[in-house]
Amino acid sequence: MENGSEKKWNFDGNQKLKASSMSVRGAYNMLMEKVNNSGDNKPLIRLCRVDPTDNPLYRTTPDASHAVATAVHSYNYNSYSPTVGLPEAKRAIANYLSADLPFQLSPENVFITVGGTQAIDIILPVLGHPGANILLPRPGYPQYDSRASCCALEVRHFDLLPERGWEVDLDSLEALADDKTVAMVLINPSNPCGNVFTYQYLKRVAEVARKLGIFVVSDEVYAHITYGSNPFVPMGMFSSIVPVITIGSLSKRWLVPGWRTGWIATCDPRGIFHKTGLVKNIIDYLEISTDLPTILQVKINFSQIKDIVDDMDFCAKLAEEESVILLPGVMVGLKNWVRISFAVDPSNIVDGFSRIKAFCLRYAKMS
Amino acid sequence: MENGSEKKWNFDGNQKLKASSMSVRGAYNMLMEKVNNSGDNKPLIRLCRVDPTDNPLYRTTPDASHAVATAVHSYNYNSYSPTVGLPEAKRAIANYLSADLPFQLSPENVFITVGGTQAIDIILPVLGHPGANILLPRPGYPQYDSRASCCALEVRHFDLLPERGWEVDLDSLEALADDKTVAMVLINPSNPCGNVFTYQYLKRVAEVARKLGIFVVSDEVYAHITYGSNPFVPMGMFSSIVPVITIGSLSKRWLVPGWRTGWIATCDPRGIFHKTGLVKNIIDYLEISTDLPTILQVKINFSQIKDIVDDMDFCAKLAEEESVILLPGVMVGLKNWVRISFAVDPSNIVDGFSRIKAFCLRYAKMS
Repeated sequence: MENGSEKKWNFDGNQKLKASSMSVRGAYNMLMEKVNNSGDNKPLIRLCRVDPTDNPLYRTTPDASHAVATAVHSYNYNSYSPTVGLPEAKRAIANYLSADLPFQLSPENVFITVGGTQAIDIILPVLGHPGANILLPRPGYPQYDSRASCCALEVRHFDLLPERGWEVDLDSLEALADDKTVAMVLINPSNPCGNVFTYQYLKRVAEVARKLGIFVVSDEVYAHITYGSNPFVPMGMFSSIVPVITIGSLSKRWLVPGWRTGWIATCDPRGIFHKTGLVKNIIDYLEISTDLPTILQVKINFSQIKDIVDDMDFCAKLAEEESVILLPGVMVGLKNWVRISFAVDPSNIVDGFSRIKAFCLRYAKMS
Repeated sequence: MENGSEKKWNFDGNQKLKASSMSVRGAYNMLMEKVNNSGDNKPLIRLCRVDPTDNPLYRTTPDASHAVATAVHSYNYNSYSPTVGLPEAKRAIANYLSADLPFQLSPENVFITVGGTQAIDIILPVLGHPGANILLPRPGYPQYDSRASCCALEVRHFDLLPERGWEVDLDSLEALADDKTVAMVLINPSNPCGNVFTYQYLKRVAEVARKLGIFVVSDEVYAHITYGSNPFVPMGMFSSIVPVITIGSLSKRWLVPGWRTGWIATCDPRGIFHKTGLVKNIIDYLEISTDLPTILQVKINFSQIKDIVDDMDFCAKLAEEESVILLPGVMVGLKNWVRISFAVDPSNIVDGFSRIKAFCLRYAKMS
């Protein structure tokens, strides 16, 4: 086919490319191309490493590798996990975080994510709604800005001040917020500044957030990795003042970023996240990702059935009377059909269909 | 604290909840609550199983488990992978898919994703821009609808017709499209209908898409899992007619949905995805997820340096002259600073700083 006769395609990526700015990776690639590769070049030194774990100095503990290998060989962890995460993992993380808190987190406070990145990708759309805004630190972690721009969240930046050891100017923070501000993000230990916020300072942040009526998202993926003399203090320490959403990850402390295991923890002893609907929003958002199996669709012939109004009603009565669960077709866009999965024990198919048959005969119109 | 004095929080989840419809998981939970749990209840049968892999009948091959355990014990796979995926995994998938195609895919055609779900989550925003629309099958897989609603993509549904064995009505498909239609999605083998499209039919779909100037997204996560007599034919077979984005996954054929390993493959022997900017958009989108390390920020004092205009220029000249890579602060929101990572071999720190010092002395203003 000649170029001249090429069909015009409706998609034009250049519309998007014009708007996009350079990413961290893009800057890295550009700089790598600058490096002198001629014969007399100096050996390359990359003091920009985003990940040291290919260096034997930065190895995780053999206990961690052993645990994963054992899990794989058990065949018990090949299934989809619950959308909120496996209960035993949620419990372990709740206990781990609680060791640094004045109260005990429960497994229900923890949601497992695909690394810290997915925790951000979940929390921002959950917080966003048209007109809402969020306060982000500058300098900060670009994923927050990228993700906010994808959902209904206006970004307002507050400055971290180098002359104050990268503390936030709390007066300017207050001036930025209004009644559409839903939350602020604090990264502690700070990425990219490397400072560690003090107990007293975090308490003041909590009090300001409380006054403004905004939640605090505390990104603690670098927890316990500190420079200088300030010990790491989790923001959850102040969650009786302001509800705190903590983001964490195995990546940094355990040197396994490739394992993509992070979490969201709701530190909220006063139950405000439940009252405002935030917890339900997190669960709903995680459930969007539910996957479907190899299955068959079966149409319900309502001309032959009485006392059942639609597929949802059919499935509800079947569950109630026969303890058989089918999926109403309306959930996948096909009203008054039902979806039947065969990915079960063969005996369940035989027994299940005999109960469905009995159920249908009971509701059959007499002819 | 009494309820009466509770601070009003700006976030109100109910604003969002009103708009959300019931998810598949939500329907499942509702039906489970209907089940009669009194003494005389029948044993529960769930013919709605989304995942059979907790049943020993549905076990992956020991070879797969062994490969993962070996990888974990090697310590070679704990790092962040490149955003597009590990080269050896990309090559393996390219070869696997090419076995069913009339041409050879290269590793550059393959992007590794967190299961088929993330492949959808990437492709829809990549295709979307304000005013654009996409054609989705009905019934279909709800993730497409959910994700499209999160990005700038209007959804238009075409019906799969049960009386035609769940084939698409191609005339109605044509009638739906306009010059803002960027792509159509086909799920083959079909989820949730279970049918397998024939070679001749897929060829007609390709020809219609070509005529409309729209790309085809072919969701083949159930590839090679077929009911009935139609063999599975990959849509990539027709990618010389219309460029095809194939979505695949290990989950179904290898019974490891919990491993969350999927892919996007661009089947496009005529290079149209490159020309239209789509490949660059995919790579850019994947790069948004790049993570950052434990590092320090260092401010450049321009009052003492000549012939360097900003942090980007500083880093470019340093790369060129000293083969040392730092990250320009502007990338994380802090212009005229540079970011230095210490997560490297100690000898690199010593040598790197000595080169940075030499570089700065060379550009120092004479006082």
